[in-house]
Amino acid sequence: MTNPNPNFGVIGSGSWATAIVKMLCENVPEVNWYVRKPEVIAHIEKEHHNPNYLSAVEFDPKQVRLSSDINKVIQESDFLIFVVPSAFLKKELDKITVDISDKIIFSAIKGIVPESQQLVGEHFHTEYNIPFERIGVITGPCHAEEVALERLSYLTIACANEDHATTLAQFLSSDYIKCNVSEDVIGTEYAAVLKNIYAIAAGIAHGLGYGDNFQSVLMSNAIREMKRFIKKRYKMKRNINDSAYLGDLLVTGYSVFSRNRYFGNMIGKGYTVKSAQMEMSMVAEGYYATNSAYEISKTFGNKKARTPIINAVYKVLYEGKNPKKIFEKLADKLN
Amino acid sequence: MTNPNPNFGVIGSGSWATAIVKMLCENVPEVNWYVRKPEVIAHIEKEHHNPNYLSAVEFDPKQVRLSSDINKVIQESDFLIFVVPSAFLKKELDKITVDISDKIIFSAIKGIVPESQQLVGEHFHTEYNIPFERIGVITGPCHAEEVALERLSYLTIACANEDHATTLAQFLSSDYIKCNVSEDVIGTEYAAVLKNIYAIAAGIAHGLGYGDNFQSVLMSNAIREMKRFIKKRYKMKRNINDSAYLGDLLVTGYSVFSRNRYFGNMIGKGYTVKSAQMEMSMVAEGYYATNSAYEISKTFGNKKARTPIINAVYKVLYEGKNPKKIFEKLADKLN
Repeated sequence: MTNPNPNFGVIGSGSWATAIVKMLCENVPEVNWYVRKPEVIAHIEKEHHNPNYLSAVEFDPKQVRLSSDINKVIQESDFLIFVVPSAFLKKELDKITVDISDKIIFSAIKGIVPESQQLVGEHFHTEYNIPFERIGVITGPCHAEEVALERLSYLTIACANEDHATTLAQFLSSDYIKCNVSEDVIGTEYAAVLKNIYAIAAGIAHGLGYGDNFQSVLMSNAIREMKRFIKKRYKMKRNINDSAYLGDLLVTGYSVFSRNRYFGNMIGKGYTVKSAQMEMSMVAEGYYATNSAYEISKTFGNKKARTPIINAVYKVLYEGKNPKKIFEKLADKLN
Repeated sequence: MTNPNPNFGVIGSGSWATAIVKMLCENVPEVNWYVRKPEVIAHIEKEHHNPNYLSAVEFDPKQVRLSSDINKVIQESDFLIFVVPSAFLKKELDKITVDISDKIIFSAIKGIVPESQQLVGEHFHTEYNIPFERIGVITGPCHAEEVALERLSYLTIACANEDHATTLAQFLSSDYIKCNVSEDVIGTEYAAVLKNIYAIAAGIAHGLGYGDNFQSVLMSNAIREMKRFIKKRYKMKRNINDSAYLGDLLVTGYSVFSRNRYFGNMIGKGYTVKSAQMEMSMVAEGYYATNSAYEISKTFGNKKARTPIINAVYKVLYEGKNPKKIFEKLADKLN
């Protein structure tokens, strides 16, 4: 049984972390919150909002127990929710000196850990010996900005142990948040990762001048490709059109605010990968995901699991191929 | 066997009809084109473009054989492509005095014939004794405006007789048009009809202030509802995520140009049905489709084919229920 009144610790201070703290604050008296920079903590304590993300969201300083000491936050929490960019996860984990083997660990990270080429859940399992029973994921479809505005949003909370998922779902739900519970940890986490690659593809297509007709065909092919990919990684009964898969793909692929789509758009317009990354002063999660997914897809080795969209994005991002030509070839493979 | 060099006749002069004539003109020396108003014909003959729709598309006057006599166009054509609003179809059909029983009839109409409450294909079958072998549909995802711009678009051509579908596909294909062929006439036609109801739902939600997160959940529920609905009407092996179903839903549901979405948006913002229709000076196809689909869904009578989105739109449009309350209830049924 899950502790019915657990302590929650949120690791991270970006927009999605801030949104998750807000959701928890609707339901629990205190949330432990690890924020790396002391000056950000000082700002939140004094001004009652995150200076960098979702700054319209006000926090009650008595409700958020801020700390720049990740070990302190971990020790005081039963549920840990990790929400840092996957590229920085290892750096944060390396700071941990306390025992985390009895914690329930949820990832709200949409990416693959570059150092281990694993999903975040797999990384915790193999590197920290956390049993899959105590590993879960939080997925959308959900833009943090809309949580800030308290616009109705749906989350999917997945864990092999349904009790843990149900408990977390209960503490994240509110007037504006509805939660679905799922057992498909691997499938929902892959969906959250792959969708960023498809958002890059949508961006490239837009940058090249393709229109809405093509975009809808691309998305309809993307969800079929995602289904094949996930089925190869972990076969179980799932409806790929559930919100955690198709919904998450759509909210990202159709969003002009998606960093991944924006990144792809620049590539389509003729920027090199390096100059697009410099221009954005950050790396879109989908960039790493493309490499990982491509490497994984090579192991599938059969026609039934073909991944033409991932392959096309890989060729553009990692082999320096001409996006116009690659997308002309891709278009012939879509239907 | 289908005649390998058939004559084509297009019935209608709206934007989608104009786009289809343009596509045919890429491949055939002459297209028979029925345009109801002589003054529109005069304009096309003199100015080489349709005065009212896609006016940037130029036609070679030697290539388009225009006539305001529907019987003449029918007599001179082997393939007839009907592209008039479903609300006006019967009025046009009533003008026909020549025999159409040996014609191959394709519908590019996305609606239900109000007088018979039937799909266009079913209407031709029951009212004109055309065998299903010679009835087909042309569906998107395809905005006519993007065809005018020659932006890459994909069509699905469905007919029980694959030869007919393949022949038409060949004459519609070009550098910017790719065609899929399908045997699922009923399924693709229902998809084209139902998507307009879901576009109205998307518009109502937007008008009520729901955001992108909700929209993606609505679309992911809509495709599942569409799958249940179509399966009940005609069970066959189909992938609901193919472009003709999911793609068509997305291009309409996410389009700010969709008349149906625009109509729904006005309703969500507080217009009555009547005032929204007057404001638009036309009736969105999805308005009639909602009534028909609702009546059909009542006959399903089991939980497995539940249609909460269609029911919600029906209650708002036909029972004058408060959209805010109805969508709050709908939101509880989505996941």
